[in-house]
Amino acid sequence: MKAIVIIGDGMGDRPLAALNGKTPLEAARKPSLNMLAEKGVCGIIDVIAPGVPPGSDVAHLALLGYDAEKVYSGRGAFEAIGFGVEVLPNDVAFRCNFATVDSKLKVIDRRAGRIANVDAARLAEEFKEVTLQGHEDVQILFKNTIQHRAILLLRGAHLSTMVSDSDPHIVGKKVLEVRPLNSTAEAEKTAQLLNELTHHFHKVLKNHPVNIERESAGLLPANIVLCRGAGKLPDLKQFPLQYGINAVAISAMPLVKGVCKAAGMKLINVSEATGTYDTNVLAKAHAAVKALRSYDFVFVHVKATDLAGHDGRVDEKVRMIEKLDQLVGYIIRNVDLGTTCIAVTADHTTSSRTREHEGDPVPVVIYGPEVRTDDVKEFTERACARGGLGRIRGKDFMPIIMNLLGKTKKFGA
Amino acid sequence: MKAIVIIGDGMGDRPLAALNGKTPLEAARKPSLNMLAEKGVCGIIDVIAPGVPPGSDVAHLALLGYDAEKVYSGRGAFEAIGFGVEVLPNDVAFRCNFATVDSKLKVIDRRAGRIANVDAARLAEEFKEVTLQGHEDVQILFKNTIQHRAILLLRGAHLSTMVSDSDPHIVGKKVLEVRPLNSTAEAEKTAQLLNELTHHFHKVLKNHPVNIERESAGLLPANIVLCRGAGKLPDLKQFPLQYGINAVAISAMPLVKGVCKAAGMKLINVSEATGTYDTNVLAKAHAAVKALRSYDFVFVHVKATDLAGHDGRVDEKVRMIEKLDQLVGYIIRNVDLGTTCIAVTADHTTSSRTREHEGDPVPVVIYGPEVRTDDVKEFTERACARGGLGRIRGKDFMPIIMNLLGKTKKFGA
Repeated sequence: MKAIVIIGDGMGDRPLAALNGKTPLEAARKPSLNMLAEKGVCGIIDVIAPGVPPGSDVAHLALLGYDAEKVYSGRGAFEAIGFGVEVLPNDVAFRCNFATVDSKLKVIDRRAGRIANVDAARLAEEFKEVTLQGHEDVQILFKNTIQHRAILLLRGAHLSTMVSDSDPHIVGKKVLEVRPLNSTAEAEKTAQLLNELTHHFHKVLKNHPVNIERESAGLLPANIVLCRGAGKLPDLKQFPLQYGINAVAISAMPLVKGVCKAAGMKLINVSEATGTYDTNVLAKAHAAVKALRSYDFVFVHVKATDLAGHDGRVDEKVRMIEKLDQLVGYIIRNVDLGTTCIAVTADHTTSSRTREHEGDPVPVVIYGPEVRTDDVKEFTERACARGGLGRIRGKDFMPIIMNLLGKTKKFGA
Repeated sequence: MKAIVIIGDGMGDRPLAALNGKTPLEAARKPSLNMLAEKGVCGIIDVIAPGVPPGSDVAHLALLGYDAEKVYSGRGAFEAIGFGVEVLPNDVAFRCNFATVDSKLKVIDRRAGRIANVDAARLAEEFKEVTLQGHEDVQILFKNTIQHRAILLLRGAHLSTMVSDSDPHIVGKKVLEVRPLNSTAEAEKTAQLLNELTHHFHKVLKNHPVNIERESAGLLPANIVLCRGAGKLPDLKQFPLQYGINAVAISAMPLVKGVCKAAGMKLINVSEATGTYDTNVLAKAHAAVKALRSYDFVFVHVKATDLAGHDGRVDEKVRMIEKLDQLVGYIIRNVDLGTTCIAVTADHTTSSRTREHEGDPVPVVIYGPEVRTDDVKEFTERACARGGLGRIRGKDFMPIIMNLLGKTKKFGA
């Protein structure tokens, strides 16, 4: 028995006035998801715990079977390895943004006008070999990734993830002074270093030729780097070892790729899978079906459903769910349903009204030739709540799949 | 209010092709179980956790309300006390088999041709007072029980349960060298002692007159003892004290008897209840009804349902469920339904296809004059999933029963 697990990012929603009280899943035409519901067993998942809105990183940790509350420190390290940046066990990693601030360090644009890769690369060049006075024992590694996005790694003894963000997350606010989040010397040293580094970023960037060029071209200057999500790479029990399987993940989103990689899964890149509205879901489906020939477990993450929710574009969310349904349909038609489990769920609920992650449970369906089917015939939040799986926690999802694959270990005699 | 709890060992199953997609519970004629479902409240239980296949020992610990993950170290001690062997708090106990190996210690038969009690007793006589050189501080106690089965106790300071099995569990494999499972001196000493003892067993047994007799009679010699399941007796909060009740268990299976005894329950032996296909369930039912006159809580364990699953005998499993239904029917007809709760569940799912314990939840029904009934009218895996109890954990089962008996303590003011 093999398995394909498909995650529709932020696919869960609430009843929306714009859809006459339906959720986007209820409004979408989704024959393949409904077929899975009819032939499989359904339920709802509190990805972390009831009422707790999960981030995509902790949600994926949980759905892969980890106790996110124990292993998670911050997004930084996952995002770094998701971008292919090597992170060593004690590195403290940050997700960074090139941003635009005014002379008083008030944020004008958190993404420096979504700066082009080529400009970001030239600016990042300046921070290749930074050493800060008084912190010569800390190696500072900085790498731009896509557009305004970048990664910062601090490598050295006596560092801590227990520091706040310099990123104020809101336009119009001043860049924040980084504070230690506990009273250890390590947290104090790390906070101090980051504050000095923030000033160094600004000093180097504000009159940089690239920014002078940008401004004369009417573009926003990338005159600071904002840091957030301090995190170490958790020492995760490797997913393939734990269950004795080989496993691969298909995702366009560095954060999710990073979590899967940290769990020991291989990654497949599908170039047409962009993580945006124009993502080619069939290319992803094709890659998943092909991967199933060599792997026992294929994990497919679709980002586009979440974007629509965050943008409050209800119709677009419905359309993205219909695209995900096409991906599911392709998989159903192209795998052996007698030897393949197919599960679909979401990593969190995103309300298209609040445009935020919410703590409502997400629907789940597990198809398999031996599952105990139920009466649910539709893959929606409300229909799945009546399903045979009942209401489970995110970290219980993977053991249930692995049990169907005959890969869980007996406890006791 | 009193209670009878009936456990159908391994009674849960998956939809089976051999039963046209039904589970054995769905295929069985079971009017009494269905009557309980109709008049009671149903649900499904993850005995340990979703997807985790439980052994019968940890499953019973959980169903009796204990946190098996905290208290369990191994089956040995439960099996020992289930056989009536006294186990002291720090003894390390092993379940053993007389077995047959070739001259290279490769296992030919893990049960020495299911050696007769009389032969096993004569062989066990040789190990009544063993002392191993260099381990004079460890008292070694060995006792045969039924056929090939035996118990080994190591008594002394500086011993550990953290050692692997010498039993390779598979015919054709060599007897395993016991390894310490952590780096303590205690685990190393225990492993070393077991390895020396294994050689001692073989040295004494290989040319033993009983084995020479057996071989000339065409029987397999019992020329080694295989050990497994190192465990200490956990210091369990005593069940009767905890709830202020007197409690008794009826089971033919030493492992389950041991768990119940460790929990502080009395044991009733029913000689016709054999734990095999020919078990006299009505004798057990009769004993249970009689016990209810003197006890508040009667625990009845039926092994036969599990045997059929492990043997892959689907029709036999259906038949054993129908026998269990007769036991339930007798109880229903012979107790006062106005003052008795009757609960039925299983300790784990056994797939009749894989022939292994599986991590799928088990169905549960609780009848009582005051339970909040639901719409479930059939005691099956799928029907119970729609029940009013929802999906609960094994360790929550007993507090629910005790609450109906008015025996749980209020928490808070």
